[in-house]
Amino acid sequence: MKLATLKDGSRDGQLAVVSRDLASAHFAAGIAGTMQRLLDDWNFLSPQLEDLSATLNDGKARHAFAFDPRQCMAPLPRAFQWLDASAYPCHVERLRTARGAEGPDRFHDEPLIYQGGSDDFLGPTDDAIFAHAEAEIDFESELAVVTGDVAIGTPADRALESVRLLMLVNDWSLRQPIATERARGHGFLQGKPASAFGPVAVTPDELGDAWHGGRVHLALESRWNGRRIGLTEAGPEMAFHYGQLIAHAAKTRRLRAGSIVGGGTVSNEDRSRGFSCIAELRAIETIEQGMARTGYLQFGDTVRIEVLGRDGLSVFGAIEQRVAAAA
Amino acid sequence: MKLATLKDGSRDGQLAVVSRDLASAHFAAGIAGTMQRLLDDWNFLSPQLEDLSATLNDGKARHAFAFDPRQCMAPLPRAFQWLDASAYPCHVERLRTARGAEGPDRFHDEPLIYQGGSDDFLGPTDDAIFAHAEAEIDFESELAVVTGDVAIGTPADRALESVRLLMLVNDWSLRQPIATERARGHGFLQGKPASAFGPVAVTPDELGDAWHGGRVHLALESRWNGRRIGLTEAGPEMAFHYGQLIAHAAKTRRLRAGSIVGGGTVSNEDRSRGFSCIAELRAIETIEQGMARTGYLQFGDTVRIEVLGRDGLSVFGAIEQRVAAAA
Repeated sequence: MKLATLKDGSRDGQLAVVSRDLASAHFAAGIAGTMQRLLDDWNFLSPQLEDLSATLNDGKARHAFAFDPRQCMAPLPRAFQWLDASAYPCHVERLRTARGAEGPDRFHDEPLIYQGGSDDFLGPTDDAIFAHAEAEIDFESELAVVTGDVAIGTPADRALESVRLLMLVNDWSLRQPIATERARGHGFLQGKPASAFGPVAVTPDELGDAWHGGRVHLALESRWNGRRIGLTEAGPEMAFHYGQLIAHAAKTRRLRAGSIVGGGTVSNEDRSRGFSCIAELRAIETIEQGMARTGYLQFGDTVRIEVLGRDGLSVFGAIEQRVAAAA
Repeated sequence: MKLATLKDGSRDGQLAVVSRDLASAHFAAGIAGTMQRLLDDWNFLSPQLEDLSATLNDGKARHAFAFDPRQCMAPLPRAFQWLDASAYPCHVERLRTARGAEGPDRFHDEPLIYQGGSDDFLGPTDDAIFAHAEAEIDFESELAVVTGDVAIGTPADRALESVRLLMLVNDWSLRQPIATERARGHGFLQGKPASAFGPVAVTPDELGDAWHGGRVHLALESRWNGRRIGLTEAGPEMAFHYGQLIAHAAKTRRLRAGSIVGGGTVSNEDRSRGFSCIAELRAIETIEQGMARTGYLQFGDTVRIEVLGRDGLSVFGAIEQRVAAAA
């Protein structure tokens, strides 16, 4: 099942079921008005939406309409929790090496996760608005899961069962404030402005065999001003699977339905796969050539992120954003 | 105006107006069903609730009922954002000195704020449930504001105008994971389980003269197992006022309605005022006696936090919680 939230002028938008090929959609209004409402009562509501999804995919939904990703908000336009991990060691190690930082502290033993802002998410084609380009604007191509309720102390294998949906994320990052905030040790605030999400959230079964071992075995294509700069594999180099990330977050507190847990910037050792953010490209330049040559994003630049399934169809639809200056 | 959210079996509860003396209440259902709904459309809905509040305080509300804080959820049972500052230098300096850490890095120049979990808040009399007492359970008595929408780059004086409500907070903290997480630099997750909030949220005018300069000039009384261990003044030693805290958070991203911004553990240089958390008491013991003698909270312990207004009435009602073990 694929689900989108369509713009209707409200803060939470209107939930809709979207066909597997992203061609058509149908409002879910009679079943659940919003995505959070669905997540709050998933076991009761999702079977009804699965029926609607099957009818839509069969071309038999009577009030279906053409799906337009430009009408999408983030699948969860605002959420009660956004936790983002750094589950790809390659990403963390490159950035640390480039800035001459110490080796990873217990990085391979225990997930590293920060609590992100979740009051304001961007839709897939919304402009990404920043106050100053000097803050060093970067994108980060990621995948994330949305959970149901998770009890305190839930082990990783059972935590994995709480995964309701998968989403594509552009975790916008400001490298200059991140450096300042990292030094202060209380996490990231100014360095992590509103993240953007792909047009549709999908249930894990939509991925078929590509969802196994708690990981997504597909590649994220990242384009900067039209040029492909990354086609990174999300599966094999993810050090902790989503169940482990969720279990880490739930070790001392329960998580409530609608919590989003991201895997962090997807990164591969194989250099030919490119990069899912500019910072990593700059890190390689710094390590190999003594200095970064590529600049960060400028106002007017575009970023496009997409994941194709094993059937060649776009899984989540594309994130296609322009970087814009605050008025 | 004083507002509470009453338990009704749902995740967001039922919004109610509460009389100034906390004796009676009236459901706000005809105006706004939930606190978030009110915050989403504050300018339109709050005048209607102010009218209801006036009628209730005059003893003329027809469907008023006795107010029972045990029926309260947190005023916002879950929120889209919870940002908590460390705005009392005395608290930070004592803890840093006790652990032999370096002096505050730019602590007096720029607010230090972390992004907290907001998917799961506790009501004022809910048990605080933890997996292990070995995690070093502590309370933190604080005040917080709830904001409306705040645009990117809003200056501090205008940011202050976005304050809609004030709340009393018990920011439950686990000192052992906090120490681990501080060293990793990505903020706090396992160290900051669900916070609890006082029974009612209040509009700033309820404080009269005690709300000025963007600060609350009242004292927080903290009791541990019935014994008073702190009566700390929230006003004079708050290094940054709430407008400055909000402006810091909104420097690179807008904040959406219903964002909660806390001032951090209230702390005074004057030792006779006591403490708003155990960690600070232990820090003083460590500095003066070479080791901490007081232990952290144990299962079965109780914590009570309350603020009296200049009229002697309880402003927010009391937080009265018991520490309990996860099942």
